[in-house]
Amino acid sequence: MERAAFLDRLAEYGGLARKTLLARLPEGEPARHLYQPMRDFCARSGKGIRPALLIASCRAFGGALNDALPSAAALELLHNAFLIHDDIQDQSETRRGVPCLHAELGVPLAINVGDAMMANAFRMLWDNIALLGPGTAARVLDEFDHLTSESLEGQALELGWIRDNALDVGPADYLRMTLKKTCWYSFIHPCRIGALIARGGGDLDSFNEFGFLLGAAFQIRDDILNLVGSEDRYGKEILGDLYEGKRTLMLARLAGALDGRDHARLTRFLATPRGARKEAEVVWVFDAMKRHDCIAYARTAADRLVEGAKAAFPTAFAGAAGEDRDFIAHLLDYMVEREA
Amino acid sequence: MERAAFLDRLAEYGGLARKTLLARLPEGEPARHLYQPMRDFCARSGKGIRPALLIASCRAFGGALNDALPSAAALELLHNAFLIHDDIQDQSETRRGVPCLHAELGVPLAINVGDAMMANAFRMLWDNIALLGPGTAARVLDEFDHLTSESLEGQALELGWIRDNALDVGPADYLRMTLKKTCWYSFIHPCRIGALIARGGGDLDSFNEFGFLLGAAFQIRDDILNLVGSEDRYGKEILGDLYEGKRTLMLARLAGALDGRDHARLTRFLATPRGARKEAEVVWVFDAMKRHDCIAYARTAADRLVEGAKAAFPTAFAGAAGEDRDFIAHLLDYMVEREA
Repeated sequence: MERAAFLDRLAEYGGLARKTLLARLPEGEPARHLYQPMRDFCARSGKGIRPALLIASCRAFGGALNDALPSAAALELLHNAFLIHDDIQDQSETRRGVPCLHAELGVPLAINVGDAMMANAFRMLWDNIALLGPGTAARVLDEFDHLTSESLEGQALELGWIRDNALDVGPADYLRMTLKKTCWYSFIHPCRIGALIARGGGDLDSFNEFGFLLGAAFQIRDDILNLVGSEDRYGKEILGDLYEGKRTLMLARLAGALDGRDHARLTRFLATPRGARKEAEVVWVFDAMKRHDCIAYARTAADRLVEGAKAAFPTAFAGAAGEDRDFIAHLLDYMVEREA
Repeated sequence: MERAAFLDRLAEYGGLARKTLLARLPEGEPARHLYQPMRDFCARSGKGIRPALLIASCRAFGGALNDALPSAAALELLHNAFLIHDDIQDQSETRRGVPCLHAELGVPLAINVGDAMMANAFRMLWDNIALLGPGTAARVLDEFDHLTSESLEGQALELGWIRDNALDVGPADYLRMTLKKTCWYSFIHPCRIGALIARGGGDLDSFNEFGFLLGAAFQIRDDILNLVGSEDRYGKEILGDLYEGKRTLMLARLAGALDGRDHARLTRFLATPRGARKEAEVVWVFDAMKRHDCIAYARTAADRLVEGAKAAFPTAFAGAAGEDRDFIAHLLDYMVEREA
C-alpha cells in the first residue's frame, strides 16, 4: 500500500467514526457549558488511529463497516473523555494546538463534560444489542469493560508515582504502566473488537502481543515528541512532561545514569511541586537527558518494539486479508516514521 | 408502619445494596491509589435512600429483591461517583464527617477514582442482560442513560451559574436545575426502575410528578441543613454553600429581597472568587438570609412540596401493595421530619 492510500484510508475511517460520533451526541441544552464544548472537542479530534484500527481489523476479517462504526465511535469518544480528564490531572495547558478544555471552561465544568462523554460512550455500546445481537454485543461490552479498567488502572499507577514522588520507577515499571494506560485501549482492544465483530467470537488473545509492542512504541515516541517536537507540530506545550514530573522511559533511564550530586539534584527536582519547578531546572533535566543519551536510548527501544510488532503481525492477523490488512501493516511503518 | 420498622427496612435495603456493590467492585491493584479508596468510600456510604427506594418500588409492585439488587447497587455506585466529582467541583472539604477524597488523595487521583466508579456502575447494569433478559435490561439501561444525562446537565447548569456569576437565578430556575441534578436520579428513576423490573414494562411516567416534588423538597432541606445544621450531624463544612456561591432557593429569595447597597454588596460577594471570600461577608449573607426570612421561606416551600408529593403518591403507586408500599409512604414523613 502506498503512503497516500494509507493516509486516505486513515482519514476516511477517522472521519467516519467522527461523523458517527457527532450524529449520536446530544445537541440540546445546556449548550454553552456542556454539549457545545463536547461537540467542539470531538469535532477537533485527532487522526482517529484507534477507530481506524478497529474498523480496519473488522473489515480485514470480513466484517461490515456499519457493524464496526458504533463501537469505533464509542472508542473515540471514550478516548476524548480520557484526554479531557487527563489534561486536568496533568495540569496541561494546550491540546491539539488550542487551550485545554479546563483552561477554557474551568476545571469543574471540564470534569463534567468528560463525565458526560464517558456516559455517552457507554450508551453508544448499548446500541450494539440491536445491531450485533445480544451475544456479540455482550462480548463487545466485556472488551470495553476491560479496556476502561486497564486504562484507569494505568492512570492510577502514573498519577500515584507523581503523587508519591516515586524515585525508583524503572523501565519495566514504565512498560507495565504503558501497557495498562495506553496499549489496551489504543491498540490491543481495537484489533480485538474489530475481529470480534467480524467473526462473532474466536481467539482474541492473539492480538495482545502485537498491540502491546505497537502501543509501547507509540507511547515512547509520544513522550519523546513532548521533549523534542516543535510545539506547533505536537499541539501540546513542549517540556510539559518535565514540568509535570511525568515518569517516562527517558526519566527512568536518566535516574539510573546519574549519581552523586546530579542524582540528588534530580531527586530534588522531582520532589518540587509542579507550580514551583523552575525553567532552569527543567532545562537542566532536559540537557542531562541529552548528555546521557536518554532520548537516543528511548528511540532505540521504540524502534525495537516496532520491529517486535512487525514480527508479531502475521500471527495476530492470520486469516485477515485485503487492503485493510495492508492498512494495518502500513500503520507499523507510520509509527516508525512518525517524527521523533 | 412504625418509625422503627421503617428505619430497619431502610438499613436493610441500604445494607443489601452496599453489600452487592462491594462484592462486585474490583479488589486488585493498584490498591492504594484506586481500588482501596473506592471500596472505602463505598463502605462509608450514606443511608442508601436511592437503592432502598428502588428495591421497595420493585417489591411493592410484586418484583423480586434479587432482580433489583444489581440496579440498586449500580445506582448507589453512580451516586458515589457523582459525590466524588461534585466535591472536587465545589472545592468541598469534608464529606460524611471525614475529609473529601480529593483532600486525601489529591485531585488527579480522585478524578480517576470517580471515573472508575462510573465505569463500574455501567458495568453492573450489563449483568441485567442475563438476569432480566435483553428486553428489560435494555429498558433499564435507557433509564440509567436518562438519569445520568439529566444529572450531568443539571450539574452543568449549576456550575455554569457559578462560573458566569449569574445574578438572576430565580426560584423557577432553581427548581428546574434541581429537577435535573437531583430529582431524576435520586427519586424519579429509582421508582421507575423498581417498577420496570417488577412489571417488565408499563407506564413509568406516573412516577415523575411524585419524584420531582419529593426530590425538590429533599434538595431544599439539604441546602437548608448546610446553613443551619451542625457540622457534626451534616458531615460537611457548614456554610460551605455560601463560600462556594451555590445558587440555592435561599439565595434566590435573598437576591429578590435586597435592594440598593445591600443588593450591590451581595453582587460583589458573588463576584468574589471562592478562595477570596471573607468569613465576615459569608456571615453577613447568612444574617441577611435570616433577616429576610429566606430560610423560613425555603422551609415552607419544602413542606408544600412534600404535601404535593403526598397527594401524588396514591396515583404514582396505584397497584402497589404491602409493607414496601408503606415504606415509601413513610419515606415522605421521614423527609418532613428530617432535621432542618
